[in-house]
Amino acid sequence: MKTMIDHGLVVTMDGVTVYEDGCVLTDGKAISYVGPKPESVDYDRYIDARGGIVMPGLINTHTHSPMTLLRGVGNDHALNEWLNDYIFPLEDKLDEKAVYYGTLLACAEMIKSGTTAFADMYFFSESAAKAVLAAGMKANISRCVTGTHNDYKNRLAEARALFRDYNGAGDGLIKIEHSAHSVYSCSKDAIRKVAEAAQLDGTGIHIHLSETMKENRDCYSRYGKSPTEVMLDCGVFDVRANAAHCVYLSENDMDILKSHDASVAHNPTSNLKLASGVANVKEMLEKDINVSLGTDGSASNNALDMFAEMKLAGLLHKGMRLDPKLIPAETALYMATAGGAKTLGRQNETGMLKAGYCADVIILDADAPALVPVNDPLSTLVYGGCGGHVITSMINGQIVMENRELKTLDMADIKRGVIAARSRIGL
Amino acid sequence: MKTMIDHGLVVTMDGVTVYEDGCVLTDGKAISYVGPKPESVDYDRYIDARGGIVMPGLINTHTHSPMTLLRGVGNDHALNEWLNDYIFPLEDKLDEKAVYYGTLLACAEMIKSGTTAFADMYFFSESAAKAVLAAGMKANISRCVTGTHNDYKNRLAEARALFRDYNGAGDGLIKIEHSAHSVYSCSKDAIRKVAEAAQLDGTGIHIHLSETMKENRDCYSRYGKSPTEVMLDCGVFDVRANAAHCVYLSENDMDILKSHDASVAHNPTSNLKLASGVANVKEMLEKDINVSLGTDGSASNNALDMFAEMKLAGLLHKGMRLDPKLIPAETALYMATAGGAKTLGRQNETGMLKAGYCADVIILDADAPALVPVNDPLSTLVYGGCGGHVITSMINGQIVMENRELKTLDMADIKRGVIAARSRIGL
Repeated sequence: MKTMIDHGLVVTMDGVTVYEDGCVLTDGKAISYVGPKPESVDYDRYIDARGGIVMPGLINTHTHSPMTLLRGVGNDHALNEWLNDYIFPLEDKLDEKAVYYGTLLACAEMIKSGTTAFADMYFFSESAAKAVLAAGMKANISRCVTGTHNDYKNRLAEARALFRDYNGAGDGLIKIEHSAHSVYSCSKDAIRKVAEAAQLDGTGIHIHLSETMKENRDCYSRYGKSPTEVMLDCGVFDVRANAAHCVYLSENDMDILKSHDASVAHNPTSNLKLASGVANVKEMLEKDINVSLGTDGSASNNALDMFAEMKLAGLLHKGMRLDPKLIPAETALYMATAGGAKTLGRQNETGMLKAGYCADVIILDADAPALVPVNDPLSTLVYGGCGGHVITSMINGQIVMENRELKTLDMADIKRGVIAARSRIGL
Repeated sequence: MKTMIDHGLVVTMDGVTVYEDGCVLTDGKAISYVGPKPESVDYDRYIDARGGIVMPGLINTHTHSPMTLLRGVGNDHALNEWLNDYIFPLEDKLDEKAVYYGTLLACAEMIKSGTTAFADMYFFSESAAKAVLAAGMKANISRCVTGTHNDYKNRLAEARALFRDYNGAGDGLIKIEHSAHSVYSCSKDAIRKVAEAAQLDGTGIHIHLSETMKENRDCYSRYGKSPTEVMLDCGVFDVRANAAHCVYLSENDMDILKSHDASVAHNPTSNLKLASGVANVKEMLEKDINVSLGTDGSASNNALDMFAEMKLAGLLHKGMRLDPKLIPAETALYMATAGGAKTLGRQNETGMLKAGYCADVIILDADAPALVPVNDPLSTLVYGGCGGHVITSMINGQIVMENRELKTLDMADIKRGVIAARSRIGL
């Protein structure tokens, strides 16, 4: 099917090219043209963007989607207490069906707020993959491996089976990668074996890295090294690595990331909410490290709104470092689009509107008062936009939301499934 | 007209009472009942909240609404440069009609994102008052006085005429108060005369206070005192005072505010964007100062979304002070509702759902995925809510938005007026 999206203020993120009255043509799953409206063109479906902003879908590079079920549990605690006293005991009671519905709910929220692709790290990941396929979203999914003894082995076996069964599913919607949770929840042996699996499967690895001061302190006491140095020893950076958080990196840690072309998933909201701190994004960018954005799970955010994440990334460092020029709008927007695509190893596929790329496109409401007037399109998006402004979303050429109506998901069914799952885990 | 809002998850902010399947009855401009559904009740209009959250409208205690016209102008500069090089030259070209349409646009954005009342400080304030009345919103409006010589006198005369003509207009929708912009833009004489006018008119005063380090430094060089001490000398705190920003207050400054029952309008987004810094809200709350929330003008935010402001207030101080217990959800929600009402001198009228109070009520979308499941209603609102979730809004008993459709304002007309105004000022 050929689609014409007409009369958009098209922000391509291919460079920072903007077309004031632009047009995006798609053919099947791909974009076939971006630019001023061509003189003659045939199409099967016409979408009038009515002057609204048309842009690449946002990319959330760190989340645990089924945690939607736990949204609002254990507020106002630091990471360690929050995980051990509130989250882990509830997660022990989750089942496949709960993960399926929790992921569907996350997909509904992400589609509604303009996200088209995400990196997910959790368990019962086959259920997550099924939910993502049902939603028609794009995701890098990993079965998270933890374990300080032999207990990691079954988890890693699950992860490898997941890769075998789901990598590339849905015509490329799904990528399976591997995941070692963190230096504090995994033995070195476990981390090493996960990194080897990623090598063997030719895929990436997704980790938590230096999220808190306590993680760094404990890692130094145990190994005499930083978490980044331990991950390096275990071979994590020999594959495409997505390092989430990175709140406490030394200069040497940053050099390790840069020299191995690892990406950072910056999670400003979660880092504030759990009182972890604020990552030194200024220094990462100065070292030309690829920094992308994540919401983290919705129990530590508590939303999955990448527009909010982009705005906070654009604001927080200015205020913290008393420098109004830090992370200008175009940098924040890059992090949430093309930068995110690179983190997911999808930089030749998504994150830009460009002929040949997948048709992962969102349209914002031309009548949203917060987006009027457009004195500066990138600034309008980053500082004025919010997830609620997104009205239409297309992923791999399939319309997953049109005029705010979800096309692949049924909220009534999701709510029933979520309510049943909550009662099974005793919430 | 009597209205029943039925089947809401009612968050009253009268204490923190929540009714899981609650009902709000209104009669004319006031609330007549809040609680479980009564056995029999008559009404003229029925609104089924369908399980969505029903709560008091949010209160924005510091904005310059016509600055919607300048949204996105002069990004990535500090306050001083931003004001002098970008904003002031454009503001010189504004006319009454521009202020009228800019204010209408701000009202549309605020209604869409759940704000029902705000404190506005600008000029051509008669136009602003007319726009607010057209929108059916509630506002404390002040004609901002600046001036280091005699030039303040005409401005103050305008402010007093505005009080005479508009205070109490729209059956109490409008309150006029007075405003001395700041210690850096006003002489002591000007500030003193504005404070005297507020005394004479029996109204409040709205000021900028200690927004930047530079303001404090310059004030010390000039007067040997802090901005708060200078304002005190000029009699500002002898009336109900709304002090915006307060990023750099000493302990003595805070004691002055507390002992005079002055309120603070905390503007976390604007303070980050202009790289002003982060206010010491922890210490203000420890001293029991009334802290409310503002967006500031939309050229330094760039949105007027009080849900975003509430979330940022809830997050920022946790992350900055590495204390996850700071500003819990109920405190952030209080700041945006009942605390804001106190700042506006409207604490017996709005900011809570309570019999006898004005019917200033908003309803959130029960099907917004970010608000599902509700494991903790206050946390859901503060950390999961965004302006885009608001579907219906009532102010003084009048429905100003229903199912996301504006009832008092016409976006097409506003856009035409805004575009014309922009071209008049050369944007």
